[in-house]
Amino acid sequence: MRSPLHQNQLTLILGVFQAAFLVIFALFGSYAPSALPSNGKDVEEATRMTNLYPLFQDTHVMIFIGFGFLMTFLKRYGFSAVSINMLLAVFTIQWGIIVRGMASAHHGFKFTISLEQLLTADFAAAVILISMGAMLGKLSPTQYVIMAFFETPVALIVEHICVHNLQINDVGGSIIVHAFGAYFGLACAKGFGKKEQRGHQNEGSTYHTDIFAMIGAIFLWIYWPSFNAAVAATDDARQRAVANTFLSLCACTMTTFLVSQAVDKHKRFDMVHIANSTLAGGVAIGTTANVVLEPYHAMIVGVIAGAVSVIGYKYITPFLSEKLGIHDTCGVNNLHGMPGLIAGFASIAFLFIYDESQYPAQYDKIYPGMARSEDGKRMFDEKTQALNQLMAIGLVFLASSVSGYITGLLLKLKIWDQVRDDEYYADGDYFETPGDYDFTSRIVTSVQKIEVAEYNPLSQKEV
Amino acid sequence: MRSPLHQNQLTLILGVFQAAFLVIFALFGSYAPSALPSNGKDVEEATRMTNLYPLFQDTHVMIFIGFGFLMTFLKRYGFSAVSINMLLAVFTIQWGIIVRGMASAHHGFKFTISLEQLLTADFAAAVILISMGAMLGKLSPTQYVIMAFFETPVALIVEHICVHNLQINDVGGSIIVHAFGAYFGLACAKGFGKKEQRGHQNEGSTYHTDIFAMIGAIFLWIYWPSFNAAVAATDDARQRAVANTFLSLCACTMTTFLVSQAVDKHKRFDMVHIANSTLAGGVAIGTTANVVLEPYHAMIVGVIAGAVSVIGYKYITPFLSEKLGIHDTCGVNNLHGMPGLIAGFASIAFLFIYDESQYPAQYDKIYPGMARSEDGKRMFDEKTQALNQLMAIGLVFLASSVSGYITGLLLKLKIWDQVRDDEYYADGDYFETPGDYDFTSRIVTSVQKIEVAEYNPLSQKEV
Amino acid sequence: MRSPLHQNQLTLILGVFQAAFLVIFALFGSYAPSALPSNGKDVEEATRMTNLYPLFQDTHVMIFIGFGFLMTFLKRYGFSAVSINMLLAVFTIQWGIIVRGMASAHHGFKFTISLEQLLTADFAAAVILISMGAMLGKLSPTQYVIMAFFETPVALIVEHICVHNLQINDVGGSIIVHAFGAYFGLACAKGFGKKEQRGHQNEGSTYHTDIFAMIGAIFLWIYWPSFNAAVAATDDARQRAVANTFLSLCACTMTTFLVSQAVDKHKRFDMVHIANSTLAGGVAIGTTANVVLEPYHAMIVGVIAGAVSVIGYKYITPFLSEKLGIHDTCGVNNLHGMPGLIAGFASIAFLFIYDESQYPAQYDKIYPGMARSEDGKRMFDEKTQALNQLMAIGLVFLASSVSGYITGLLLKLKIWDQVRDDEYYADGDYFETPGDYDFTSRIVTSVQKIEVAEYNPLSQKEV
Repeated sequence: MRSPLHQNQLTLILGVFQAAFLVIFALFGSYAPSALPSNGKDVEEATRMTNLYPLFQDTHVMIFIGFGFLMTFLKRYGFSAVSINMLLAVFTIQWGIIVRGMASAHHGFKFTISLEQLLTADFAAAVILISMGAMLGKLSPTQYVIMAFFETPVALIVEHICVHNLQINDVGGSIIVHAFGAYFGLACAKGFGKKEQRGHQNEGSTYHTDIFAMIGAIFLWIYWPSFNAAVAATDDARQRAVANTFLSLCACTMTTFLVSQAVDKHKRFDMVHIANSTLAGGVAIGTTANVVLEPYHAMIVGVIAGAVSVIGYKYITPFLSEKLGIHDTCGVNNLHGMPGLIAGFASIAFLFIYDESQYPAQYDKIYPGMARSEDGKRMFDEKTQALNQLMAIGLVFLASSVSGYITGLLLKLKIWDQVRDDEYYADGDYFETPGDYDFTSRIVTSVQKIEVAEYNPLSQKEV
Repeated sequence: MRSPLHQNQLTLILGVFQAAFLVIFALFGSYAPSALPSNGKDVEEATRMTNLYPLFQDTHVMIFIGFGFLMTFLKRYGFSAVSINMLLAVFTIQWGIIVRGMASAHHGFKFTISLEQLLTADFAAAVILISMGAMLGKLSPTQYVIMAFFETPVALIVEHICVHNLQINDVGGSIIVHAFGAYFGLACAKGFGKKEQRGHQNEGSTYHTDIFAMIGAIFLWIYWPSFNAAVAATDDARQRAVANTFLSLCACTMTTFLVSQAVDKHKRFDMVHIANSTLAGGVAIGTTANVVLEPYHAMIVGVIAGAVSVIGYKYITPFLSEKLGIHDTCGVNNLHGMPGLIAGFASIAFLFIYDESQYPAQYDKIYPGMARSEDGKRMFDEKTQALNQLMAIGLVFLASSVSGYITGLLLKLKIWDQVRDDEYYADGDYFETPGDYDFTSRIVTSVQKIEVAEYNPLSQKEV
Repeated sequence: MRSPLHQNQLTLILGVFQAAFLVIFALFGSYAPSALPSNGKDVEEATRMTNLYPLFQDTHVMIFIGFGFLMTFLKRYGFSAVSINMLLAVFTIQWGIIVRGMASAHHGFKFTISLEQLLTADFAAAVILISMGAMLGKLSPTQYVIMAFFETPVALIVEHICVHNLQINDVGGSIIVHAFGAYFGLACAKGFGKKEQRGHQNEGSTYHTDIFAMIGAIFLWIYWPSFNAAVAATDDARQRAVANTFLSLCACTMTTFLVSQAVDKHKRFDMVHIANSTLAGGVAIGTTANVVLEPYHAMIVGVIAGAVSVIGYKYITPFLSEKLGIHDTCGVNNLHGMPGLIAGFASIAFLFIYDESQYPAQYDKIYPGMARSEDGKRMFDEKTQALNQLMAIGLVFLASSVSGYITGLLLKLKIWDQVRDDEYYADGDYFETPGDYDFTSRIVTSVQKIEVAEYNPLSQKEV
C-alpha cells in the first residue's frame, strides 16, 4: 500500500504546477501580433497558418499518437504509456513555453505566443517523451512529472546556447532534441537503476500490444518529414528537408529489415526493430535535412542509421543493461541517441562536402554565423562552424548525462511515490483496470500447454 | 428472433433515403463556383483549398476516427461503435447538406456545394454522433438512422436561428453542436429509457478496448484546434482559435489527471476520464476561441472544464442514471453538455471582459450584429449581444431536450426493430462476429480464479 | 525448416537492391529546382509545399497506415500485414522513382526529384500494395519483394503509355493504379495458386483484428479525396475532385450497409464489407473526379460501386476461388478491380454527358489530347478520346493479367523461399512472436464450449 502522502502527492504537485503556470502566463504571457486582431495589412503574418499549420499538426500527431502508441508495446503498461505520454506532453508544453519564452525575452520576462511557439513547445515535449522511453515502466506518475520539471529547463537552456551562442544548424533537432532526450534518459536510468528493473516478468509484449505500437511507429514514420522541415527558413528548404527525410527513412527501413533478419538466429524479423529502427533514418538526417543537396547522400545516412540502430537493439542495449546497469526500456539509445550523434557528425561532414556557392542567397539562413557582411567577411568560417557543431554535440552529451544522472538519483529519494518492485511495467497501481487486464499474460503459459494437443494436426506433423 | 419485417427494415429505410437524397441532389444541388471550371481569374476562390482543406481534413478525421474509436471502449460493441458511427455520419452529411442548403437558399430550394459545405456537413454529423454517444448500445441500426433523420433538421434550424437571427458568435459550435447534441441525447435516453439498460453486464470495457478508445480520444484532442478554427473569418482569428484551443486543452488535461486521481478512493486514474474529460477544454473554449485575447484566459476555461467534466463522470452521470433514469452511455453530458454550457456562459463573460477597441477592423467579423454603420451606429450593443448569446443557450437547451425526448418516445414504438434486453451494448445481433467475440469477457472470471495460484509468487507475497 | 539458402535469401536480395538503388540515385538522380536553394524569386515553385504538401501527406497516411492496417484483419498475420506493407512500400518508392524517372528522362537517364515525385512514388507503391492484398498470407517476404520488383516497371510503363501516348485522363489513378494492381494480383494468385491456400484454418479474423483493420479502412476513407485530387491541375479542379470523391464515398457507404445486410441470411452486417466496400466509391469516381460537374452524378457512381463491391465479396470472390482457382485474400477485385473498371467506363460516359463548353479554359488541362491549337483544331475529338480511355482499360487489364500470371508462376519456383502449407496466413515463420500470438484462436473453440454453461443466464433463456 502506498502511504496517503504518496497517494495524494501527484494531486498536490499537479495542482501547484497548474496554478503556477496560470499565474506566470497571466503575468508574462501574451499572444504575438500574428494571433491578434489586426487590420489584415500584415500579409506575411496573415499567411502563417497556411504555411506552418499543416506541418505543426503533423508534429502534433507525432507527439501524442506517435510517441504515445509507440510505447504501448508492453503487455501491461498500455494505459500508462498513452496516458502518461499525454500528461508529460501537456506539462512540458506549458512549462517549455515559459522557459523558452523567458530565455528569449528581451523586455523583462515577457514572452509572446503564436503558432511558432506551439510548435517549439511540441519539440520540447519530444525531449521529455524520449527520456520517458528510457524510464518507461519504472517511475510513478509523480516521478515522471518531476523528471519533466527538471529536464525541461536544462534541455531548453542547452538548446538556447547551441542555437544562439554556437549558432549551429540543427533544423530537425536531432542533436538538441533527440540526442539530449536519449542521453538524459539513459543517465537517469543509470542513476535510478535497481536490479529488480531488469529481466522483469512484466517486460515483454503481447501480440496485440505490438500492433498497437505500430500505430505510433507508422505515424512517426509518415510525419517525420514535417518534423524535420517545420522550422526550415524557406519553401525550398522545407521541400528539401521533406525529400531528404523521406528518402533517408526509405533507405533506413530497407536496411532495418535486412539487418533485423541477418542478426537473428532463426532469421526472423523482430517487431522492436520494425517499430523503432525504421525511424532512425529520420533522426540521423534531422540536423542536415535542409543542407543535403544530393538524394543519395540522404539515403546513405538512412542506411547507416538503420544498421546502427538494429545492431544497437541486438547487442548494445543488452550490454548496457547487463554490464553497465543502464536499463533502457524502449531502447531510446538506438532510436534517438546514436542516430542523433550520427546526425551531429553528418552535419560536420556535409559542411565540407557542400560548398557555400551551392546555396545561393540561402547559406546564411542555414548558418547565420557564416552570414557575410557587406564587405564579404564572415563571423565564422566552415572550420569554426564545424567546431561549433562538434561543441554542441559535446555539450548536449555532457549536459544531458550529468543532469539526467542527478535527476535519476533525485527520483530515488523516498519522498517521491515509488513503484513497487513487482509492479514495474504494470498499470495496476495507478490506473483502474478492467477484469482482463493481465489475463492473457497470466493464463497463456499453462493453457497453451493444455490445449496444444487438440490443436492443428497439420502443424503437429511438420513441426 | 427478429421478425422478417424488422430484419429487413434497415435495408428498406436506407434504400428509400439514399434514393431520396439522389433525387433531391439532382433537382436542387449543384457545385459552387469555387469547385467549377473557371478561367482562373477568381483568385480569392482559387486559394480556398490551400486555406481550408487542411482544417477540413483534420475535422474529417475527428468525425470518423475520433468519434468512431472513442466509442469502441465497450467490450462487445466495437464493431457497432466504429461502423454505425460511419453510417450515421454519411447519412447526416447528405441529409445535413440538403437541410442546411434549403434553409439558406435564396432562389427556390437550390443549394450549392463547395468545400465549405463539406465542412459544415461534418459539423452536422458531429451533432448526431454526440447524441449517439448517449444512446450507445441501446438502439438498433434502424433506430439510430431514424434518430439522425429527426435530429438533423431540428439541430440545423436551431443553428440557423442562432446564427442568422440571434447573430451569435459560436465559432467552434460548442453551443449549437456540442450542447445540442448532448442534451438531445440525454433527453432521448430519458424518453427511451428502460431499467434493463442500466447496470447491464455488457457495459464495461476490456483492457484493449480502452486502448482502442484512446485512438479516437487522442485524434480528437490533436485536431480540436482545427475544429474550433475552421470557420473563423481571418487568418489571425484562426491562429488565435488554434492557440486558445491548444492551451485550453493542455490546462484541461493537467486538471483531468489531477481531479481523476483526487476523487478516486484508491487514487488511481480512470481511463474514462483520460479519454473524455481531457477533451472538455476543447468544447469549453469553442464558442470564444476567436474572441479570447489572453492566453491565461483560455487556460482558466480549460481548468474549469476539466474539473467539471471529471466530477460529472464521477458523481453526476451515476446520479442521472440512478435517480432520474437518464442513462448516458458515453457520458456526453460531461464531455459535450456541461462544457458546452460553460462555453456559452464564457461567451457572455468575454463580451464584457474584452472591449471593441481590442479588435481593430475585426469586431464585426466576430459579431456581425455589432457591425457599425457609417454613422457609427450598431444594431446590437454588448448587452443585446450578451442577451442573444444567452437566448441561444436557452433555445438550444430547450429545443434539444424537447425534440430529443419526443424522439426517444418515438424510438420506443414497436414498429422499429428493437435491441433485445440481453443484447444491449453488444454487436452479436447486427454484425457477423468471429469466434472470440465475447470470449475474453466470458472466460475471464472463472479462469482468473483458477490460474491465480500458479502465478507470480512475487506479487503474492506483497499483495 | 527452411534451408540456410532460403533463410538468408531476403538479406541478400535487400542488400543487392538497396546497394543498386544507391548507385543509381548517385549516378542519375538529383533534386529538382523547387527543392534546391534559390534566391526565392521563383514564386510559383516557392508555393508548391503549401499547395501540395497536405495532399501528399494524406496520401502518405493512406499508403502506410491505410493499406497497412486494412490488411491486419487476419488473426495471425498482423505483424506481416503492417510490416511487409511497409517494406514493399519503401522498396517500390525507391524503385518506382528510378523507373518513372528514367522513362520520363529527356537527357540520358537523368531524373529529378521533388515533392511531386515523392507523391507519384506513393502512387506506385499503391499498385504493389493492392496486388499484395490478393496474395496476402501466401508469399514469403522474399517473394513479395520479387513480385514488387517485376510488377513496378510493368505498371509504370503501362501508365506511361496511357498518360503520354493515349493521353487519357485518370486523375485518381483508378485505371492505372487500382485496376492494374488488382488484376495483376488476381492473375498472380492464379499462377501461384495451390489448393492448400483455400479454406485454410488460419484464414479468418478475431474480434480485435477486425477493429485494427478499421483503423486502416477509415483513414483510407477519410483521405481518399486527397488521393483523387492531388495531381489535378487547378485549384478548382482539386476542390471538385475532393467534393466528388467525398460525395461518392458517402453514397457508397450508405449502399454498402444496405446491401451487406440485404444479402446476409441473418441480416447482419459483415465487417469485410464495412472495411472494404465503403471505399469502392473512392475508386469508382477516381478517374473522373476532376471531370464530374454535378454532385448527384458522383453519388450515382458511389451507389453503383458500393453495390457491386458487396455483391463481389458475397458471390464473386467465392466463385473465383472455388471455380477458377483464383484465391483473393483481401478481395481486391471488389475494392480495386471492379470499381476501377467502373471508373474507366464512367470516364467514357462522362466524356459525352458533359460538353467542352462546360470547362472554360480548362478542358485541355483535363484532356491534353483535345487541346485546341490557335486555329481551333484538336488532335483528338471526343470519340477518339473515348476510344483511348477504352484502350487504356484494355491495355491495363491485359498487361496486368499477363504479367501477373507470369509473376505468379515465377514465384512458384523452388529457388525462392516458400511459405509452408500449414503456415499460410501466419506470422510465426518470419516474425518473432510473443507467447500469446495464436493463443486466442487456439483456445477459443474448446473453452467456449466449457464456459458457456456458466454464462449469462439471461441470454440462455431467450436464445
